[in-house]
Amino acid sequence: MTQKLTAEVLIPDLTPAERARMERVESVLPAIRAAAQEADALGAFPKGHVKLLADAGLLGLVVPEEFGGLGGGLRDLAATTYALGTVCGSTALAYFFHCSASSRGMLPLAAIDAGLYTDDEVPVVRQFAEKVLRRMGAESLMLANFASEAVKASNANVLISTTATATEGGWLLNGEKSFGCLSGTADYYLVTARREDVPGIDGLGLFLVARESVGVRPRAPWQGLGMRASDNHGLVLEDCFVPADEALAIPGGFTRATQMSRGSWVGNQVAIAAIYAGIARGVWEYALGRTMAAKFADTGKPIASSPMHQVLIGNGEASLGEAHLWLRRQIDLEASEPPILPKDEVVASWKLAKGAICEHAFSVATDALKMCGTSGALMDNVLGRSLRDTAMGLVQAFPAERGKLDLAKVIVDREGWAGLTTRDAMADAKPEKVEAAAR
Amino acid sequence: MTQKLTAEVLIPDLTPAERARMERVESVLPAIRAAAQEADALGAFPKGHVKLLADAGLLGLVVPEEFGGLGGGLRDLAATTYALGTVCGSTALAYFFHCSASSRGMLPLAAIDAGLYTDDEVPVVRQFAEKVLRRMGAESLMLANFASEAVKASNANVLISTTATATEGGWLLNGEKSFGCLSGTADYYLVTARREDVPGIDGLGLFLVARESVGVRPRAPWQGLGMRASDNHGLVLEDCFVPADEALAIPGGFTRATQMSRGSWVGNQVAIAAIYAGIARGVWEYALGRTMAAKFADTGKPIASSPMHQVLIGNGEASLGEAHLWLRRQIDLEASEPPILPKDEVVASWKLAKGAICEHAFSVATDALKMCGTSGALMDNVLGRSLRDTAMGLVQAFPAERGKLDLAKVIVDREGWAGLTTRDAMADAKPEKVEAAAR
Amino acid sequence: MTQKLTAEVLIPDLTPAERARMERVESVLPAIRAAAQEADALGAFPKGHVKLLADAGLLGLVVPEEFGGLGGGLRDLAATTYALGTVCGSTALAYFFHCSASSRGMLPLAAIDAGLYTDDEVPVVRQFAEKVLRRMGAESLMLANFASEAVKASNANVLISTTATATEGGWLLNGEKSFGCLSGTADYYLVTARREDVPGIDGLGLFLVARESVGVRPRAPWQGLGMRASDNHGLVLEDCFVPADEALAIPGGFTRATQMSRGSWVGNQVAIAAIYAGIARGVWEYALGRTMAAKFADTGKPIASSPMHQVLIGNGEASLGEAHLWLRRQIDLEASEPPILPKDEVVASWKLAKGAICEHAFSVATDALKMCGTSGALMDNVLGRSLRDTAMGLVQAFPAERGKLDLAKVIVDREGWAGLTTRDAMADAKPEKVEAAAR
Amino acid sequence: MTQKLTAEVLIPDLTPAERARMERVESVLPAIRAAAQEADALGAFPKGHVKLLADAGLLGLVVPEEFGGLGGGLRDLAATTYALGTVCGSTALAYFFHCSASSRGMLPLAAIDAGLYTDDEVPVVRQFAEKVLRRMGAESLMLANFASEAVKASNANVLISTTATATEGGWLLNGEKSFGCLSGTADYYLVTARREDVPGIDGLGLFLVARESVGVRPRAPWQGLGMRASDNHGLVLEDCFVPADEALAIPGGFTRATQMSRGSWVGNQVAIAAIYAGIARGVWEYALGRTMAAKFADTGKPIASSPMHQVLIGNGEASLGEAHLWLRRQIDLEASEPPILPKDEVVASWKLAKGAICEHAFSVATDALKMCGTSGALMDNVLGRSLRDTAMGLVQAFPAERGKLDLAKVIVDREGWAGLTTRDAMADAKPEKVEAAAR
Repeated sequence: MTQKLTAEVLIPDLTPAERARMERVESVLPAIRAAAQEADALGAFPKGHVKLLADAGLLGLVVPEEFGGLGGGLRDLAATTYALGTVCGSTALAYFFHCSASSRGMLPLAAIDAGLYTDDEVPVVRQFAEKVLRRMGAESLMLANFASEAVKASNANVLISTTATATEGGWLLNGEKSFGCLSGTADYYLVTARREDVPGIDGLGLFLVARESVGVRPRAPWQGLGMRASDNHGLVLEDCFVPADEALAIPGGFTRATQMSRGSWVGNQVAIAAIYAGIARGVWEYALGRTMAAKFADTGKPIASSPMHQVLIGNGEASLGEAHLWLRRQIDLEASEPPILPKDEVVASWKLAKGAICEHAFSVATDALKMCGTSGALMDNVLGRSLRDTAMGLVQAFPAERGKLDLAKVIVDREGWAGLTTRDAMADAKPEKVEAAAR
Repeated sequence: MTQKLTAEVLIPDLTPAERARMERVESVLPAIRAAAQEADALGAFPKGHVKLLADAGLLGLVVPEEFGGLGGGLRDLAATTYALGTVCGSTALAYFFHCSASSRGMLPLAAIDAGLYTDDEVPVVRQFAEKVLRRMGAESLMLANFASEAVKASNANVLISTTATATEGGWLLNGEKSFGCLSGTADYYLVTARREDVPGIDGLGLFLVARESVGVRPRAPWQGLGMRASDNHGLVLEDCFVPADEALAIPGGFTRATQMSRGSWVGNQVAIAAIYAGIARGVWEYALGRTMAAKFADTGKPIASSPMHQVLIGNGEASLGEAHLWLRRQIDLEASEPPILPKDEVVASWKLAKGAICEHAFSVATDALKMCGTSGALMDNVLGRSLRDTAMGLVQAFPAERGKLDLAKVIVDREGWAGLTTRDAMADAKPEKVEAAAR
Repeated sequence: MTQKLTAEVLIPDLTPAERARMERVESVLPAIRAAAQEADALGAFPKGHVKLLADAGLLGLVVPEEFGGLGGGLRDLAATTYALGTVCGSTALAYFFHCSASSRGMLPLAAIDAGLYTDDEVPVVRQFAEKVLRRMGAESLMLANFASEAVKASNANVLISTTATATEGGWLLNGEKSFGCLSGTADYYLVTARREDVPGIDGLGLFLVARESVGVRPRAPWQGLGMRASDNHGLVLEDCFVPADEALAIPGGFTRATQMSRGSWVGNQVAIAAIYAGIARGVWEYALGRTMAAKFADTGKPIASSPMHQVLIGNGEASLGEAHLWLRRQIDLEASEPPILPKDEVVASWKLAKGAICEHAFSVATDALKMCGTSGALMDNVLGRSLRDTAMGLVQAFPAERGKLDLAKVIVDREGWAGLTTRDAMADAKPEKVEAAAR
Repeated sequence: MTQKLTAEVLIPDLTPAERARMERVESVLPAIRAAAQEADALGAFPKGHVKLLADAGLLGLVVPEEFGGLGGGLRDLAATTYALGTVCGSTALAYFFHCSASSRGMLPLAAIDAGLYTDDEVPVVRQFAEKVLRRMGAESLMLANFASEAVKASNANVLISTTATATEGGWLLNGEKSFGCLSGTADYYLVTARREDVPGIDGLGLFLVARESVGVRPRAPWQGLGMRASDNHGLVLEDCFVPADEALAIPGGFTRATQMSRGSWVGNQVAIAAIYAGIARGVWEYALGRTMAAKFADTGKPIASSPMHQVLIGNGEASLGEAHLWLRRQIDLEASEPPILPKDEVVASWKLAKGAICEHAFSVATDALKMCGTSGALMDNVLGRSLRDTAMGLVQAFPAERGKLDLAKVIVDREGWAGLTTRDAMADAKPEKVEAAAR
């Protein structure tokens, strides 16, 4: 019987092609597990991991084969970040931010096919998109995606204030990116900036900044509570020059492309949630292994058999199970062909799924900590690291509480909402009965 | 665009044959909804429902076409009890207990094919099995399944004390069944009893008792908190005669057949859990409809838009979503061909799924009650009934707390357990580190 | 050793006078317990209870001795509704609504002392206030308080639309009260109505309506989910005449009095919450008693000793403990002399306490139901009744979710809020650090 | 108006003497707050803190005035560890372990008064007990208490394997203490060891080991997840000599003394729980201060006013409130004169209180983290440190899950249990009704 792959617990029906890709992933897990503790302590992405991932072909995981990649899709991406998460959350997160750069190639190409660009624009867009993909695929280079910034509005939108000013032969970038993995590590930073001369969202453009360019450097070191080895330091850009052919800066060039996304935003956030579920599985297996191996001095029975441990095992299994259920469901919704639900319902589902996955993951890490007692509650073993890593999941993107409120607003604001409910329920809700409904 | 069927929310990928069967189900929902409130108040299964279900062909839903049924499987059964649950939990439960009688035909036939009977036994088993199925299918008769009794052991086994004594031409039954739907309503009771002359579990046999037989009558009326209209009164059997050809009483005749089940026990318990998820969906749509239709007297905005209602909507949607996820997963595990997981893991999954579905359903009913305030908190409207009905789900079969403990025990007792975890986690759990693991 | 009184679990430091009053309460508990099941089934306040309570002197519990009462205060009231709750929630609720009428006597008298009325007004106010108190005390009559109506505003205020029109020798009342206990049972209804000729809140007046008056009758029978035997039917008033000396109708007469309240509104809502805690204690003792008395057929050990029951007992004890803690704290805050906290903090505390007490009570009832399994899940035994009764606590006044939101709003809106926090925390929260605080 | 002391939120009714002691505590808080972040990062108790606490007279907080102390009791101790917890959990924990050494003086003195020693023993016991107290009080030395070890039994008892062997003029100690604060810092270690020549629990003795003694050293540095600056490294003892007059080693000398404790074990564990509640309050004020000070870029409103933040504030306030309620209650139970409840009920209450306080504290820290988003989720700011510190509370002593199970066992095992419940509930639980109670 073949060994079950880590990713198969999440996606049991891997296709042969997916399975082949997941075997590549499985092959790098031991080395990544071995490096995880020190990487977390140092707060630095391990030097050797770029080569490790490149040699395994994994930098091109979600790049089409025609550009030298492995041709994987969202199922591959989520299964991989999940598997990496079981051994090192930080590596999984950094890897995700590399892979997410592919959207900057894939969405523009899809938008070309959908006729969203003029004939003049098409070659410009295509050369940029293919360059991004070829670097990730054929050239096995590591990219990193820098979009978010610090200032935010009450509607939760992040405002982009990094600017791109036209100069001879290209652009000068100025600004600061407050978060972003692989800062100081990636071969190229894929930076989102706003053209000074184009108002509104159409001014957003994409710029490939080589790591060693003049005028770019990591911000002050980030001392995160968890996910510490992802080099998540952000960037400072000061008159940093980017050649014209390393940019996609035509007005509306990128915003049109984002319409092609199937899920929320650029359509792969579920693969971040997969990391937290992976971490939860990793720490849970650790805690079970440890409390099965440790025995009571008098009876010789495993510590896991105590009544308290039985309660914790039941709770942890239930939480881990629910994390997997939400994750699988969201992957199905975002990856299946034909689509199961319309896009707005996929996005609505994500509002619940993100929070549920991350809350359950944190809960599993907490139960694992309780399983192993005070002697296990160390800063940098699997237990301490997983608690800290999954705590980051609570705040990443949005907490569960906000996701639920967002969904509630969608439901109440929905046009024609009544059509979704049963007619009889509505008929029964006669005005005179419901006047005081909420007292 | 075609109207979405109630069952499609649970099972979005209905086959054409399943869809045709679900349209039959959809057609009876309005009448069942209309009868639900009075049925609950009276604590009686509505008289007309037997004919309603028979006329729609639904008494043979899970009976093969060769015996006059519709040829549905577990997916159909769960989708149907779910859909019925959205309008009347009691009807759904009673219907389930009718359908579950089919296992007494299907499992013996499967056991014949598997060679579990001797040549002498085969014709006896076959005539009984086919009789059960033909009555449900071709003859559109209503059956009811009476197994459980009151006395229980510390290992949670129910002991069968109803006896069958051989007499001329058949058997005399004596005993009392403490629970069982459709008492006084079904055309035939399918009674499990113990042959006095055969020791142990091999003595268990099946007996078809016609409703109007001498010596059988409902026990004292059952005043349940919820699920009240299921005629769940139990039976008293006093020297009740059953002809030999209305029994499957050969030693081990039925116990061998239960080996053919895919899930827990006779393999369809998930369709009971589906009822509670259905009730939850029904009450949730009621509460949303009511608080959308009711407006604040001053602003004219729907009551559902208040901050408190937004919190409740988010919570209720999350709970309802989780109930659906667990339910779909368990249906997949028990119904898919080829099997996704080995039987013991399917049973283990059920230990969590049952509790999770029922807890979430109760939680949805509670949130719905809060949504609608004091004026909605009535005994027999949808809100009050759903709270009482879903409360029964908390205790039916086993509470969530016991399911989780059962699973934990399975995990700790498992032979070769270590194989399930990662080797590295085990290696890391060195004895000196874990001695005090649980402090 | 003296038998511990039921109320002592809630208030361990009873004064001798309080203890004497609580012994009167203890003396009526057996009769009230005996009547509870039938009262719930009929949905009617037991006929004999008015006399039972009157004979025990309890109709004047919170009436000063000078008016023929027992001179109890808020501690007595809460301890009594709690003790009554352990045997019959409905009786406790109806009794509360009788006692709450005393506020219509006490607050005006306090407002007189505080100089809130003119010299002309004082005798009018005093005669009404003393009449109310004397009827409850010296005359041992049962009163009932009818304030709330159906229409509500987005700020959660209830609008009073019942009108009082001046007529010869008194007032004509017209309107409908949607809720209100003891409808059809109390000797006098204490009705809040709005004078047609006085605009705004100053128009609110109090009117004593004798039960058998022409023009007053109960609304349609109320079929509540729980608390069913409280005669909570509301009133219909059609040209119902009230003599001038049975009214407190001077402009602002009652609104000025409410300023004298120490807690929220008229200052005794905590005694309603006490009912739900009492119900929880009652059902918990029932469930423990039942599962200790019932034994496993094979081992002879109590069912309460099973692992699942141990988990449930731990959970139930924790919930019951928390309900008691919140309740005791709020009683202390509202009853202690001198006050522990300023009034606005007492009200803020109530926002959390009310929800916490009622949620925990419901949770205890749910755990009790699980303890006793399907055979205990009956409509009208202690288990079913307590689940239904405590469900009413979830929606009474406001759900826990709204209380928490209300408190959060108070905190954020508070002037000079920063003063409450530590200076260092504020200093640390430098603008540049927190711009993106909520991402 | 006088500034409210930190400790007054926990204990509002401070006596004048207590208030004077709490003003000493308040005076050291700023310096301890300022040192907290670096201490956590280094994992070391700040060098200056011993002198800081000594100069404030706080090393003798709970030592009677006759021995040079401040004469405080359990209320002082809990109020102090709570106040220290609001600024630095590690300092609070280390300080607690110093103070807990006083029990080794106080309990023996109480046991002398209770006549538990023979006339021969009294002077030996007295000189040791007074020496301990005088060192803490008059001499302002820092002590540390080393009891627990690694090996444990299935009944959760910790086994003492450190041995004391009689030698000329004193004892030789050998063994290893796996946990214990102030290792390497305290002036004296108070070590519990087992006399080799006295079997059973009577062999346990107490030994004062000077920090610089030959044969004693800290174990390997402890890298805890939280509470890192408490020097919780444990000890290694190798033929470490202790003079006879620095030991209490008469058979049964210490075990008899522990009978004098009012609460669990040596009777001050509640002051550890107070630390976690203090940490929770500290981080909650930080989070409120931060999200009130940070504004949305567009509306200028505080981030704390967003709907999500309102939900979190309500939840956090409720959790913090419940932590305070449980803590106050347990302090009352253990400190009040005369006792409110018998000792076994005080211990039973602790089983719930410990878990409830620590779970709520962790929940507050989690909500605070969510309040402040990704930019706040740093390793060593107040948010990250509090999450890690309160996580230690989940496992310290026993997790909430075990406390609840322990209590449940006590309840079910209790002799004469039935006496606690109402007779009627028992009467109602007739055998025939409850046979199947747990199905």
